Amino acid sequence: MAERSFLGDMLTTLFERRQADQAASDERSLPDLCRALLDAEGEVSGIRLAQTILDRYGTLDDAGRRDFFTFLNDDLEINVNALGAAAARYAETNDLKDYQAMVAQTETRRWELFRRLNMPMGATRALVEMRRHLLVALKDQPDLKRTDIDFRHLLRSWFNRGFLVLRQISWETPASILEKIVEYEAVHAIESWDDLRRRLYPQDRRCFAYFHPAMPEEPLIFVEVALTQAVPDSIQGVLAEDRAPVEARETTTAVFYSISNCQQGLTGISFGNFLIKQVVEELKAELPGLTTFVTLSPIPRLNAWLRTQPEDDTTARVLANVATEDEVRDTAAAYLRHAKTSKGLPFDPVARFHLGNGAQIYAVHGNGDTSPNGIQQSSGAMVNYHYDLTKIEANHERFQQSGEVALDDAFQQSQSPAKTRIIPGRQRIAS
Amino acid sequence: MAERSFLGDMLTTLFERRQADQAASDERSLPDLCRALLDAEGEVSGIRLAQTILDRYGTLDDAGRRDFFTFLNDDLEINVNALGAAAARYAETNDLKDYQAMVAQTETRRWELFRRLNMPMGATRALVEMRRHLLVALKDQPDLKRTDIDFRHLLRSWFNRGFLVLRQISWETPASILEKIVEYEAVHAIESWDDLRRRLYPQDRRCFAYFHPAMPEEPLIFVEVALTQAVPDSIQGVLAEDRAPVEARETTTAVFYSISNCQQGLTGISFGNFLIKQVVEELKAELPGLTTFVTLSPIPRLNAWLRTQPEDDTTARVLANVATEDEVRDTAAAYLRHAKTSKGLPFDPVARFHLGNGAQIYAVHGNGDTSPNGIQQSSGAMVNYHYDLTKIEANHERFQQSGEVALDDAFQQSQSPAKTRIIPGRQRIAS
Amino acid sequence: MAERSFLGDMLTTLFERRQADQAASDERSLPDLCRALLDAEGEVSGIRLAQTILDRYGTLDDAGRRDFFTFLNDDLEINVNALGAAAARYAETNDLKDYQAMVAQTETRRWELFRRLNMPMGATRALVEMRRHLLVALKDQPDLKRTDIDFRHLLRSWFNRGFLVLRQISWETPASILEKIVEYEAVHAIESWDDLRRRLYPQDRRCFAYFHPAMPEEPLIFVEVALTQAVPDSIQGVLAEDRAPVEARETTTAVFYSISNCQQGLTGISFGNFLIKQVVEELKAELPGLTTFVTLSPIPRLNAWLRTQPEDDTTARVLANVATEDEVRDTAAAYLRHAKTSKGLPFDPVARFHLGNGAQIYAVHGNGDTSPNGIQQSSGAMVNYHYDLTKIEANHERFQQSGEVALDDAFQQSQSPAKTRIIPGRQRIAS
Amino acid sequence: MAERSFLGDMLTTLFERRQADQAASDERSLPDLCRALLDAEGEVSGIRLAQTILDRYGTLDDAGRRDFFTFLNDDLEINVNALGAAAARYAETNDLKDYQAMVAQTETRRWELFRRLNMPMGATRALVEMRRHLLVALKDQPDLKRTDIDFRHLLRSWFNRGFLVLRQISWETPASILEKIVEYEAVHAIESWDDLRRRLYPQDRRCFAYFHPAMPEEPLIFVEVALTQAVPDSIQGVLAEDRAPVEARETTTAVFYSISNCQQGLTGISFGNFLIKQVVEELKAELPGLTTFVTLSPIPRLNAWLRTQPEDDTTARVLANVATEDEVRDTAAAYLRHAKTSKGLPFDPVARFHLGNGAQIYAVHGNGDTSPNGIQQSSGAMVNYHYDLTKIEANHERFQQSGEVALDDAFQQSQSPAKTRIIPGRQRIAS
Repeated sequence: MAERSFLGDMLTTLFERRQADQAASDERSLPDLCRALLDAEGEVSGIRLAQTILDRYGTLDDAGRRDFFTFLNDDLEINVNALGAAAARYAETNDLKDYQAMVAQTETRRWELFRRLNMPMGATRALVEMRRHLLVALKDQPDLKRTDIDFRHLLRSWFNRGFLVLRQISWETPASILEKIVEYEAVHAIESWDDLRRRLYPQDRRCFAYFHPAMPEEPLIFVEVALTQAVPDSIQGVLAEDRAPVEARETTTAVFYSISNCQQGLTGISFGNFLIKQVVEELKAELPGLTTFVTLSPIPRLNAWLRTQPEDDTTARVLANVATEDEVRDTAAAYLRHAKTSKGLPFDPVARFHLGNGAQIYAVHGNGDTSPNGIQQSSGAMVNYHYDLTKIEANHERFQQSGEVALDDAFQQSQSPAKTRIIPGRQRIAS
Repeated sequence: MAERSFLGDMLTTLFERRQADQAASDERSLPDLCRALLDAEGEVSGIRLAQTILDRYGTLDDAGRRDFFTFLNDDLEINVNALGAAAARYAETNDLKDYQAMVAQTETRRWELFRRLNMPMGATRALVEMRRHLLVALKDQPDLKRTDIDFRHLLRSWFNRGFLVLRQISWETPASILEKIVEYEAVHAIESWDDLRRRLYPQDRRCFAYFHPAMPEEPLIFVEVALTQAVPDSIQGVLAEDRAPVEARETTTAVFYSISNCQQGLTGISFGNFLIKQVVEELKAELPGLTTFVTLSPIPRLNAWLRTQPEDDTTARVLANVATEDEVRDTAAAYLRHAKTSKGLPFDPVARFHLGNGAQIYAVHGNGDTSPNGIQQSSGAMVNYHYDLTKIEANHERFQQSGEVALDDAFQQSQSPAKTRIIPGRQRIAS
Repeated sequence: MAERSFLGDMLTTLFERRQADQAASDERSLPDLCRALLDAEGEVSGIRLAQTILDRYGTLDDAGRRDFFTFLNDDLEINVNALGAAAARYAETNDLKDYQAMVAQTETRRWELFRRLNMPMGATRALVEMRRHLLVALKDQPDLKRTDIDFRHLLRSWFNRGFLVLRQISWETPASILEKIVEYEAVHAIESWDDLRRRLYPQDRRCFAYFHPAMPEEPLIFVEVALTQAVPDSIQGVLAEDRAPVEARETTTAVFYSISNCQQGLTGISFGNFLIKQVVEELKAELPGLTTFVTLSPIPRLNAWLRTQPEDDTTARVLANVATEDEVRDTAAAYLRHAKTSKGLPFDPVARFHLGNGAQIYAVHGNGDTSPNGIQQSSGAMVNYHYDLTKIEANHERFQQSGEVALDDAFQQSQSPAKTRIIPGRQRIAS
Repeated sequence: MAERSFLGDMLTTLFERRQADQAASDERSLPDLCRALLDAEGEVSGIRLAQTILDRYGTLDDAGRRDFFTFLNDDLEINVNALGAAAARYAETNDLKDYQAMVAQTETRRWELFRRLNMPMGATRALVEMRRHLLVALKDQPDLKRTDIDFRHLLRSWFNRGFLVLRQISWETPASILEKIVEYEAVHAIESWDDLRRRLYPQDRRCFAYFHPAMPEEPLIFVEVALTQAVPDSIQGVLAEDRAPVEARETTTAVFYSISNCQQGLTGISFGNFLIKQVVEELKAELPGLTTFVTLSPIPRLNAWLRTQPEDDTTARVLANVATEDEVRDTAAAYLRHAKTSKGLPFDPVARFHLGNGAQIYAVHGNGDTSPNGIQQSSGAMVNYHYDLTKIEANHERFQQSGEVALDDAFQQSQSPAKTRIIPGRQRIAS
C-alpha cells in the first residue's frame, strides 16, 4: 500500500534528454577545452563545454586517451612545494586563513575538472567509462596512478552507499536492463532468455541489483538468489531446467548463488557487502519463514593454488579430475581453511570477500559445479558461506585481527578426524 | 511518447524504508560511536552505527551540538606536521608511494566520517540539517570553519549539477511537496492554497524545482514562471486574483518572478544559474513561440543603501514613500547601475546573481511591488533582468573582468538625458 | 517489494491527450450528428464525430439538453411492435436466426449511440455528466426514464466492480485530487487544507477511494478511516485539532467515520458495500492488530422523523436540544431499531445502507456530533455500526428476508430495562 | 514535460492482489453456485462466490465446459413468452411501468451472471478465456450461439474503444509483456530475442499495442512499424539483420508491416481500425516529417483462391513458384482488385480489413515475402495499402456502398495496358 514517491517520476524527466544534442563543434584542443572549463567560461557555459569535452573524448583511440590522461596527470597536479610551504605556514600561525590556503593546495585541479565534467546528462556514466580506460592505461604507465587516486576518491564520494538504490530484477524488468544482466553475469553464464527466465520468473527465485540514480540504465552489482528448503550442494540442482518451483512462503533458506560486479570503471569501490546485507533484510521482511542465509560459491583459485604446491597423489587426482567426490571436497576444505596470501588472508578471493564480510564456512561440496568452468577452476568443488546474523560482527572482528577463518558449527561437526587431509608442504591439518 | 525510465520506480523502493527502525540503543558517547564508525566496526555494521549516531545527534540541544562540532573540528583534523613532512618527502623523491602517503595526509578524518554517516536511508537530509546547525554555531565559534570547509567540499561533490533532477511543480504534485513550496517561498509569500493554485494551475503559469535523488521529498531551489505576452512591470499584475489566463501557445515571454533557495544547509552551493538556464531550454522546447526570457526581480537592498548615502530631496521622498513613480524608478536604476561593493561588484545581491549569470538590465519600474515588503525594501521598485541567450556569455565575461553592469538596448534607449538622476555623494550619472 | 505493473504507466499516455483538439466544426444538428455516428460515417470517423457531439452537448443550456434528451428518448427507442413480432416468431420456430432477430430488437439505438460516444478521450466523464443532467431533467419529465434505464444499464456495465481501482488518498496524493476530496466530502465538511492534512497525514488516519481508469482524475466514492484503540463515541474526538496521533501498529479498531459518493451521475450504481469490505481486507493485511471494524455514523433523518411523531416530553426536549445525553441516545436507539419505511426497511438511509451490508448496531451516542449540522439533523446523536466479518452474511440474509435490525451483543447488554424508551404513537419498545 | 497522471499508479495496487487467495472450498455444484451468485448471497459475498466459480471453471475439461455452457444457454435464457406478453402490454398501454417490465424481460440472466463474475481481481481475463472456450464449443454445438450473443455484447461494452489504452512497446518494456508479443505475432514470426530487439530497439522502428486496464498484462492487438525514406517492396528488406537504422527525424514514411490480434476470446470485437488511426496520429505528432502512411501486407488467400480458378499457364507458374516477379505481381494485383466474396467484398481478408478502413492499394510486389510462409500463401507477393488521410472517409463510403476497391494514383499510373493480366474464368481485366 506504499505510495509511489514523488521521486518515482523524478528521473523520467524528459527534461534532461533535450540537452544531449547541444555539444557544439569547437576547434580548441582537449587540454584547452579543459582549461576553459576550469576557468570563467566554465561558469557560464559549463554544461556545453563539458559535453563537448566528453564527446571529443569519446572519439579518442588508445593513444589519444593516453595523451589525455598524461595531460590530466601532469598539468593538473598538486603543487607540492606550495603545499609544503602552506602546511609549514599554518603549523606556525595556526591561523584560519592559512588553514584555508593550505587546504586549497591539497586538491588537484583534476578534481574540479571531474566535477565540472559531470554536469551534462549521462556524464556520470561517461566518467565511469573514462576510469575504465584509465585502469587499462595504468598497466603500462604506472604513474597515472596519481590521476586514479583522484578518480577513485571522487567515485567513492559519488557512489556512496547512501546514494545507491536497490531494485529487484524480475521478469517485469525492462528488456534493456535484462540484457545487461545477461551480459554482466560473471559467475554462471546465462545462456539464453529461457535460462534468464528460469532465474527470474519462478516464485522461488529472486535477483536484486544496486543502481545509481545518475546512470539508471546500468546495474552496478547484482545478486541472484534461490529460495529453498535446504542448503543446496550443487549449482546444477539450482539451475536445473526441469525443477519444480517451491512456494516462496514454504522456503527456509535463501541461497546467494551468483554475485557479479558490472562496472569495471568502479573497481575498488565495493558494494557487495552492503548488497548482501540489504537483500537479507529485504527477504526477511517479505518472507519471515526464511531463517538461513547462505551462499553457494565457487572456489575460483583452488586448482591454480594446488598447482603451486608439491604434488601428492590426491592432489594429482584432483587436478586430473579423477579424484572421488570426497577427495575433492576435503582438498577444497583444506585449501579454504589454510591457503593464505603473504598478508595472512585467505588465498581465495571469493573466500576473502565473504569471510571478510563476517560469513563463516558452512559446507564444502566435491561435486558442486560440473560445468567446464567449474571443473577447470576447482575440479567441481563449491562452498557454502553462511551469513549468520548473530555472528557476523564477531567473525569480522577476528578476521580483521588475525585472519581467522570462521567455521560454522555444522561444518566443524562434519569434519571427523577420519576426514583429515594432508596437503604436502604444509603441516598436517584437519580439513 | 517517452517511455518511463526504469529508474522512475527505482526510488520508490519500499526497500530503504525498512532500515529506518534499526537504530539500536548503544551506550557509548557520540565521539566513541564516531570513532567506532571510522574503525573496523564501521565496515561490518556501518549502517546501523551511522543510524545510531544520526539519531543521537538528532536529540542534541545547542550546547550538545557545539560539543559535537568541537569534537569534529579538533579530534578529526589534519595532522599538519605529518602533511608537511609527507609533502617534503615527495618533493624530494618524486616517488609514487610517497605521493600516496602525502595524499593520505591531506584528507581529514571528518570526510570519511561524513561519507560513512551518509549510508542509512535519509542520512543525506540529516547531514544537510547538520550543516545548517554548523552554520549557526559558526557565528559564535569561527574556528569551526575548518569543519565547514570539509562539509561544503563534500556537499559540493554530492550535489553536483549532474545529480540534480529538474521537476515541474504543478497542481498534480503531491501535497507533501506543495506544502514545502509554500513554506520555502522567500520572495512573494504564498498566502493560501488558493494563492498557490493560482501560481501552479493556470496554463500560463509554471514552476520548476531541482531535487536530489537522496532527499526526494525536499526541493532544493525553485523558480516560478509567468508566461505572458509582454514584459510585466509589476508583481501585482502577475499575481492578481482575477486575471484571465492566456493560452500558453500564444505567449511570447517567460517571466521568472520568484526564485527561492530552500535548504540553508546548502548555503554556498549554488544551483540558481543552472536552474534558470535549464528552465529556459525546457520552455523553449515546449513552447517554441517563447522568444523573451526575463525576470521580474526585487531590489532588496535599495533602501538600505539609500540610507547610507548623503540625503537629497529625492532620496528623502523615496525613503518616505512620497516620491513619484518616476523618481523611484530613476533612483532604483541609478542604484542598480552604480552602487558597488568594495570589490566592485553590484551592491544589490539579486543584481549580483543575475548579472553574474550574464543577464542584462532590461527595465526598472517605480511601482512594481506595492506589498508592505516591497515598499519597505525598495519603495516599490522592481527590475527586469533579461536573459538574452546570444549575449549571456559575453556579459558574464565582462562582468567577471570589470564588474560591468550589462544594459539591454531597450533599457539604454529608455534612458534619456532628461531622466538623469544625481544621487549626492556620487558623480553625476545617467540613470 | 512489488514491481510496479506495466499498466502503471499505461494511463499516463501522452497519446490520448493529442486527440482532444480535433473536434471539428460541423454544421449539422445534434440529432443529425448522432445519426451520422450511428451510421457508416461513425465507423470510419467515429472518434471525431463523437468528440464533436460531446463538445456541442457541452454548450447546451437546460432547454437544449431537454431537447436532446427528448430526441434520445423518442427517436432512438425500441420498436415495440417489431419486438413483439420477433418474440412471437422465435417462440414458434425456436430457430437461432429468429433468436438473433429478436435480440436485435431488444436493444435501443441509444445504447449503440452511448457506446460510440464513449470513444474519445474523456468521454466517459462527459457521459457521467450527461446522466447527471438527465436525472435533473427527469424530475420534470418522467418519461425520460426510458432513456435513463439505458443509461443506468450501460453505466452499471462500465463501472462494474471488476474495473474499479482502489487507491489510498494520502498527503502524497496530487493536489488536483485532494481538492476534489474537499469538494465531495458530504458528511463532515473539510474546512481547510489544515483540516484535510489532519485527516490524511497522521499515521493513524487513512482515506481510500475508488477510481475508474477512464476518468482517473475523479474519485467515485471515498471513505475516511480513523485507527484507534477503542470505539469512539463522538466525531469531535476523531477530528480534534490537538489530538496526539497513535502508532498505527498499536491500534485495534478501524473507524469508518465518513463515506461520500462523489458522482451524482452514477446515482443508483452502488460502490459503498464493496469499498468498505475491500478497505477492511486492506487494513487487516497491513495491520494485523486490527480486530474491530466499526463506523461512526450520522443519523441524518432522526429529527425529521421525530417531527412526524406524536410529541411527548422527551421528544420535545430532544427536538429543542435540551434533552440529556441519555435521552438523546435512547431516542436515537429507539428510532434506529424501530422506525421503518412502508416497505419495512429502516427509515434512516444510513442505517439502511450499513444494515443492508450486514453490519449490526454496536452503540448509540447522545453527544456524538455537536456541529450545527449534527444538532440540526439528530440533536447530536451518532451511531456505530459494527462490521463483524463472522456475522455479515447471516445479518444480511435476515435483513433481506425480514428487515431485521441486527444488534451487536455489546449493544444488547447495554440496553437495560431501565433504559427503555417509549416513543408515543408506537408500541412500547426496548430501545 | 507531462506530469504522470495520478492513475499512473492506480493500477499497481497491491490491493487487488490480496483477494486472490480467498476462493473458498464450497461443495455446491457450478450451477448452484451461479444461482447463489445471482441471488441475495451474491450481494453480500459476491466477490468470494465469483472467485469460487471462476476457480472451479478453471479446473473443467472439455466435457465439463460443455455442460457449463449448456447450463448457461438453457437455464439462464430469456423467457420469450413473457417477453412477447410484456411487449404486447406496453404497446397497448404505453405506460412507463410496462416499459420497465418489458425491458426487464429483454435481458438474459447470463448477463447479470457475467457482470457479477467480473468482480474479483483477474476475472476479466478469465471471462475472455471462457469466451475462447465457448467459441471452440460452438463449432460442435451451434445453439450455444445464444450464449455467445450475450458474451459478445458484454465484451463489446467492456472493451469499448474509450477504455483501451495505447502503449508503445519498446526495448524498455518488461520482458513479461515482450514474451507475449513474441507469442502473439501472427504475421512474421519473431524468431529470437535478437529478432525482437531488431524490431523494437532501433530508432526507426516502433511497436504499439492496445491494452485494457483490467488485464494489463495482456496486449489485445499490436502493430509493428518501420520508419523509412521510401515505401518498401519486401519484408526481407524491412527485417534484414544487417540493415543500418535511419535517423527517425529523417524518415518520411511509416510502414505498418505487421498487425496481430492477440485474444481469440475477443473475436468479433474489432480494434485494428482504431489502432492504426491512433498510431498515425501519434507518429505525426512525434515526427512531423512523416507524410506517408502505408502497410506492407501479406496476401494470405492468393494461392488458395488461384487454386479454385481454371488454370492457365501463368497461374500454374505462379502456383509452382516458377513465375517471374512481374507475373506474380500482376496476378496478385488482379486478385486484389477483382476476387470477391459472394457478398461482393474482397476475397482477401487482409484486403477487406484495410480497404474497409478506407485505405487504398498503393503498390503490389512480386517478390515481397520469400519466407516459406510467404511462398506458400502468395508465391511471395505482398501489397502496400495506403492510408491517405484525405481520402479515407470517401474510400470507406464507396467501399461500404459498392465494395469498390480504392486505388492510389501511384498505383493506377503503374498499371500500363502492357501489364494487363487475364485470369481465366473471369473477364479480361487490367491488373
